[in-house]
Amino acid sequence: MAVALLTDFGWRDGYVGALKGVLLSRAPALTLVDVSHEIPAGDVSAAAYVLSQAAPWFPAGTVHLVVVDPGVGSERRALALASKGQFYVGPDNGVFTLVLAADPHCQAHQISAPRFAPAEASPVFHGRDVFAPAAAHVACGGALHELGPALPPGELVRRDWPPAQREGERWSSAVIHVDGFGNLVTSLALPVEFSRSGEKLAAARVWVGAREIRFARTYGDVAPGELVALRGSSGLLEIACNGGSAAARLGVERGAVVHFAPFDAR
Amino acid sequence: MAVALLTDFGWRDGYVGALKGVLLSRAPALTLVDVSHEIPAGDVSAAAYVLSQAAPWFPAGTVHLVVVDPGVGSERRALALASKGQFYVGPDNGVFTLVLAADPHCQAHQISAPRFAPAEASPVFHGRDVFAPAAAHVACGGALHELGPALPPGELVRRDWPPAQREGERWSSAVIHVDGFGNLVTSLALPVEFSRSGEKLAAARVWVGAREIRFARTYGDVAPGELVALRGSSGLLEIACNGGSAAARLGVERGAVVHFAPFDAR
Amino acid sequence: MAVALLTDFGWRDGYVGALKGVLLSRAPALTLVDVSHEIPAGDVSAAAYVLSQAAPWFPAGTVHLVVVDPGVGSERRALALASKGQFYVGPDNGVFTLVLAADPHCQAHQISAPRFAPAEASPVFHGRDVFAPAAAHVACGGALHELGPALPPGELVRRDWPPAQREGERWSSAVIHVDGFGNLVTSLALPVEFSRSGEKLAAARVWVGAREIRFARTYGDVAPGELVALRGSSGLLEIACNGGSAAARLGVERGAVVHFAPFDAR
Repeated sequence: MAVALLTDFGWRDGYVGALKGVLLSRAPALTLVDVSHEIPAGDVSAAAYVLSQAAPWFPAGTVHLVVVDPGVGSERRALALASKGQFYVGPDNGVFTLVLAADPHCQAHQISAPRFAPAEASPVFHGRDVFAPAAAHVACGGALHELGPALPPGELVRRDWPPAQREGERWSSAVIHVDGFGNLVTSLALPVEFSRSGEKLAAARVWVGAREIRFARTYGDVAPGELVALRGSSGLLEIACNGGSAAARLGVERGAVVHFAPFDAR
Repeated sequence: MAVALLTDFGWRDGYVGALKGVLLSRAPALTLVDVSHEIPAGDVSAAAYVLSQAAPWFPAGTVHLVVVDPGVGSERRALALASKGQFYVGPDNGVFTLVLAADPHCQAHQISAPRFAPAEASPVFHGRDVFAPAAAHVACGGALHELGPALPPGELVRRDWPPAQREGERWSSAVIHVDGFGNLVTSLALPVEFSRSGEKLAAARVWVGAREIRFARTYGDVAPGELVALRGSSGLLEIACNGGSAAARLGVERGAVVHFAPFDAR
Repeated sequence: MAVALLTDFGWRDGYVGALKGVLLSRAPALTLVDVSHEIPAGDVSAAAYVLSQAAPWFPAGTVHLVVVDPGVGSERRALALASKGQFYVGPDNGVFTLVLAADPHCQAHQISAPRFAPAEASPVFHGRDVFAPAAAHVACGGALHELGPALPPGELVRRDWPPAQREGERWSSAVIHVDGFGNLVTSLALPVEFSRSGEKLAAARVWVGAREIRFARTYGDVAPGELVALRGSSGLLEIACNGGSAAARLGVERGAVVHFAPFDAR
């Protein structure tokens, strides 16, 4: 069974290795999958977004071990979730915001049984001492209720996620993620037709501030160095730059506002 | 069977995870091997070079999934190759230049069968929607001809690769790769004798511009901080700096010219 | 069986892939585990520290392949160690300092048999040509004595490791590692009571130079942006910053002196 690892530990230290060692010590036959260890330190929103991009593609039974945990050792709860055939283990701090949004009635348990939350756990490394043992338990087919009591999913911590909003003839959305290429991902979901040549695509118009960005199918539809708006690989409106970084070109960050008009209606 | 992953996705986003999820969903028993996800964005030449350094060491049957694909969604073709017992899946944009140079008569197929190039594939993420499913197919023993028609390898896209050239008593070569240590790798292949103490090694002379660099067996043969020329681990002439970065010391980049004289003949 | 990889190769080049290819060619069923490839280039002390944080968590039988090897191709020896049920393969340059400190009577062998140290090994890449084949041999159950003669562990190279020292009522220790979060790890081991609320923890006082740092259980016990001293996840005194980098805040590096007083006794 696979355990997919998503952390902000970075690749320079021994923390990733300690996690993997604990997992293999408890379940030597596990398939360990590195998703990311380069989430910016403590950036719960980035972890939630990256998880939402990667997790849906994994097979049933996968355990997603998510350790972006700036509140480690405080009162925040430790969680295990079961949703759509997969499992999620990590802190109750919002890293599972998009899992909960996609499945508000998922099964949730606190990790609090003494076996999984021992008094001798380091208050600064629950990834190693609490979450990894719990993930190994779940990956080996262990029941969630052995980890601790069920929790109503509605009570779990969620991050505010700025939804796209209609403003007259336009949609207003916010940049929710800047990826490693400098692409700006917004919160506006676009129907699949915007990935195909045709009337809908031709009529789409996008603005960042007062600047209009050409809407197209893919990066290469504009000249090298040009900005382009498109339907990204997860169906969200994105601003990119062919062969460059849209974030650098526009000087914008997470939170920047992007407008979209499906018709020529400005 | 092993799938070796080589991309420019970086480790910060969910793209690497999505690839791996697709592969494991189709073939849960695959061994996934991270080669690199830190190829500079869209740098097809770097991908081709790094692939040539890593791939020959893998066992027969390995599938190399190479996704450095700045032209994703455009007319560029999707490819699967079989060469010397291993397989290669990725875009027809030059990432396989050195595979083709080493085996001009390899077997090549376009990936175009509807099953592997579906209309609903995202035009900005063929890695996930086209190449990963094709790689899983090949890794599970699927035939290349099921992916699409055979292509003459001579018609595939190649990058220009500056060959080393004889100029009188000297060889002129170009830096084709700057590695993470700041070592400058050139296109000049040296016989194995230049890795061993002896007459040949003692007579070798190397220049970057007007500056002569001492030729030696290994880094530690010069004082800390000193530049050294040597036969690198893949048999190519390299310029290094003991305990430092030759690229930083010399202020040169890919494309810089390096001269080599096998005899004291300047 | 698992081989855990710890190198300074970086993720941008083909070196990590070449190692993995050699390992899988010799033992296709190996579980390859990336611990770190981002050790600073040639930083033997960092490698020794990171190894000490990760290795103890791995199961018996794991082979730790450690390639931080600035003296590659020189007279430094190649080593294989057996300690506490695990194995270690790498250069005799100090990367195993903390393995040897924890187990001074471990079993050590030189890797010098022609089969594992062939004349044709590249003098600049023993990781690929010497250490990886030796690691595969050991991971497959091969005996250490087949690699070469036994060595007295007392003769192996060790790095100086600044021990914590008592100075009157205070302990003086040095920063031995700065992690990716900017946490400053010192050489002073603290008993587990300093991870728990209580008298001991309340009385602890810590100084960096003249500046006193509040001692607490975990990061969140101080306000965001505040410095905090605590017992780190491996039992060593650490200086951190809640939501930030202590290294940046204090402008200190490895080697900086930190004082600790278990009682209010300055």
